[in-house]
Amino acid sequence: MSGTSNSPSPDSGPAAPATTKGGSLPESANITWTKTRVTDAMRCERLGQRGAVIWMTGLSGSGKSTMAVGLDAHLYEAGKPSFILDGDNLRHGLCCDLGFSSEDRHENIRRTGEVAKLMAQSGIIVICSLISPFDEDRRKVRESCLRDAVPFAEVFIAASLNVCEQRDPKGLYAKARSGALKGFTGIDSPYEPPQAAEVILQTGVNSPEACIQQLVAHVLALTSLKAA
Amino acid sequence: MSGTSNSPSPDSGPAAPATTKGGSLPESANITWTKTRVTDAMRCERLGQRGAVIWMTGLSGSGKSTMAVGLDAHLYEAGKPSFILDGDNLRHGLCCDLGFSSEDRHENIRRTGEVAKLMAQSGIIVICSLISPFDEDRRKVRESCLRDAVPFAEVFIAASLNVCEQRDPKGLYAKARSGALKGFTGIDSPYEPPQAAEVILQTGVNSPEACIQQLVAHVLALTSLKAA
Repeated sequence: MSGTSNSPSPDSGPAAPATTKGGSLPESANITWTKTRVTDAMRCERLGQRGAVIWMTGLSGSGKSTMAVGLDAHLYEAGKPSFILDGDNLRHGLCCDLGFSSEDRHENIRRTGEVAKLMAQSGIIVICSLISPFDEDRRKVRESCLRDAVPFAEVFIAASLNVCEQRDPKGLYAKARSGALKGFTGIDSPYEPPQAAEVILQTGVNSPEACIQQLVAHVLALTSLKAA
Repeated sequence: MSGTSNSPSPDSGPAAPATTKGGSLPESANITWTKTRVTDAMRCERLGQRGAVIWMTGLSGSGKSTMAVGLDAHLYEAGKPSFILDGDNLRHGLCCDLGFSSEDRHENIRRTGEVAKLMAQSGIIVICSLISPFDEDRRKVRESCLRDAVPFAEVFIAASLNVCEQRDPKGLYAKARSGALKGFTGIDSPYEPPQAAEVILQTGVNSPEACIQQLVAHVLALTSLKAA
């Protein structure tokens, strides 16, 4: 974070309404940027790691949550503060006002990305687990993080549709095939695979533990203070 | 966090649109709650503190940001991981789509409360600094935190309107009096003082450092692992 003022400022005071979406600054002379005395770098130094956003994307049933929970547990054992932001969980809280329209799905990803960035700025390794089917949504989160010097890694959970559909842990593919669920990613709504993911986990081929080890190695390197 | 499943789930899969606002669960059989193996209590234990939400409310110019920055710096010196969520800063990111209508102001507080709770669940002491003029908005944040066993303290920055207007660090009161700013809290938009704040800081009477010391003492007690 950067800024120019420590003085109190009118967070809910009147100003020109924000006219932009997707990360641009609202044009208003009445919103200023409050600088903190403790820098992000200082927070990270204290926690012994660089905060980061680890973004897991993949089809339903690909193993995102399994990878997220496994990574989280390994980081805990290694003494590295982390946290999972799960797409489903966020829909019960921060995003409870959002539905499943195209616009709401984009907004769901945008908000998750903003929260993840804030948490990473506090020094936490944030593991985001969302289908996040659209490349542009993921790209915007990446750009937003990098703009604020927050390390970011896109992790593609690359199980094939065929594998995911055979697993079908909640019977959702069956529902989608029968027509009882509309707009289901992979069936009648597209999934755009990452073009340049930092990590690709072949969860349909390799064991969960092998995939988690591959992921842990990448995350420890990314978040090492020596990498700064 | 609590839950019943570790399996992958369709975060952006189709489901009944959320029909509720303000914290209720969307009614959908297709959104489940992903449980993590590492509990909030384990995260806090590792960080040597209970994560918490410290909610600073008060008029523009009352000293919220000064108190927030001072508390943050003291916590840093004490080795306690903390982070400031500043209302103005959030309007550049998470809340950049929101304006200053009554509905958008409520939503601004709701989102800030949700993010603060998530960060506190990761073990961080989260210092929220927003005018947050309406008692009901603040009460909802409090209830949301306590429902998930997240320690919460409301901190009333109690400088009088007269004091704030004399300070007028950004000339906003002058603008509001002249009619150039509409809907300014304290002038032509109400501020509802907290009825039962955990901490009341008389920033118009006592020195900033004395107020910060009072605040630090409360926060250290609230976030002590022994208080759990």
